[in-house]
Amino acid sequence: MTDAPQPVRLVTCSTAPNPRRVNAFLIEKGVEIPKEEIDLATRAHYDPAHLDKFGTHHLPALELSDGSTLTETMAICRYLEALHPEPNLMGATPLELGRIDQWNRRVEFMIMLPAAYVFRHSHPAMATLEVQEPVMSEWHRRPLAKGLEVVEARLRASPFLAGDRFTMADINAYIALDFMRVTKTRVPEDHTATLAWQASLADRPSLQRYVPPAA
Amino acid sequence: MTDAPQPVRLVTCSTAPNPRRVNAFLIEKGVEIPKEEIDLATRAHYDPAHLDKFGTHHLPALELSDGSTLTETMAICRYLEALHPEPNLMGATPLELGRIDQWNRRVEFMIMLPAAYVFRHSHPAMATLEVQEPVMSEWHRRPLAKGLEVVEARLRASPFLAGDRFTMADINAYIALDFMRVTKTRVPEDHTATLAWQASLADRPSLQRYVPPAA
Repeated sequence: MTDAPQPVRLVTCSTAPNPRRVNAFLIEKGVEIPKEEIDLATRAHYDPAHLDKFGTHHLPALELSDGSTLTETMAICRYLEALHPEPNLMGATPLELGRIDQWNRRVEFMIMLPAAYVFRHSHPAMATLEVQEPVMSEWHRRPLAKGLEVVEARLRASPFLAGDRFTMADINAYIALDFMRVTKTRVPEDHTATLAWQASLADRPSLQRYVPPAA
Repeated sequence: MTDAPQPVRLVTCSTAPNPRRVNAFLIEKGVEIPKEEIDLATRAHYDPAHLDKFGTHHLPALELSDGSTLTETMAICRYLEALHPEPNLMGATPLELGRIDQWNRRVEFMIMLPAAYVFRHSHPAMATLEVQEPVMSEWHRRPLAKGLEVVEARLRASPFLAGDRFTMADINAYIALDFMRVTKTRVPEDHTATLAWQASLADRPSLQRYVPPAA
């Protein structure tokens, strides 16, 4: 696959949860891609030249050696997984491919998504960027709590989300739960399996928070 | 891969958009899985025995020959794609895997998702199942319109969403636009590329709507 287009530049904002997911994936793979960090507050990802090049404002956004681009966190990881198969993070057998994707998507739709709605529609930091609707925030607190229960039930039966080894599903879940803190939601104290799983991963280098360099 | 767990039963509701996506995928692959059709109005997918077995109420839900299960539309397709690689629908090269997933996700997050919010929070058929919040419906009409613009821009530059051939991204987009009709949203008349792409696919057997047998 040496003639496949290679990644050349990752436009990102490493403090945000989706960029953080791709960064964690890259660290686990031992792959480095030159990064261009942007400050979301500058709205540089809404610049017409950026939108024209990448097709959306979504970050991170990857530029490839053939001049094409790729956005959407999991699509970028899927491409990089094929380019750099080891260590495997997204599945090595048909069932494992499905099982990891199942948990990726449950975490995204049941935790990341409601947490993002709560954040965007209630957090003061988002007030200048969004038309905030309090009901959009409050409504999503119940599905978010439900999502935490689904993860807890799984981790009571399995050491990692997708089975007996660390995968992309754990990266996604760990960062989703970390992101969720902006909504003032905590993992409930009786979710002992989730808390133990979090603690077991807390020192993993790929999962550390990004600290921007001093200006 | 003949020793891999095989699909044995698909619990589904073929009139709903996510089940329809998996059904279209199966038809394109020429793969048949015994189906158990349930009526969403009976809430059979919220039955404790169902929840205990499959882990969520999400449909479709797949049971495998090893007794395990798989839910989440795209995870089921990802598993089946590995089990039945031809015809390829989800990517044959690293970049194609990423490109198809990019468009799968854009369609899901930019069209399916806002359309589902509009539907669930405004349609009379959902009034008995949901606490409907009109603002949750109205708020999503603008991102839905934006998603249609992203698809139109792409189809002006490419014959199919992910490139020069029909893929899962086209299945997802076609069914998303069909589902969107429940929100009283139509593809705008000046979206000529989207309308031409829709027309070109309208007779494809996999994309026909499911008509339940007469009771």
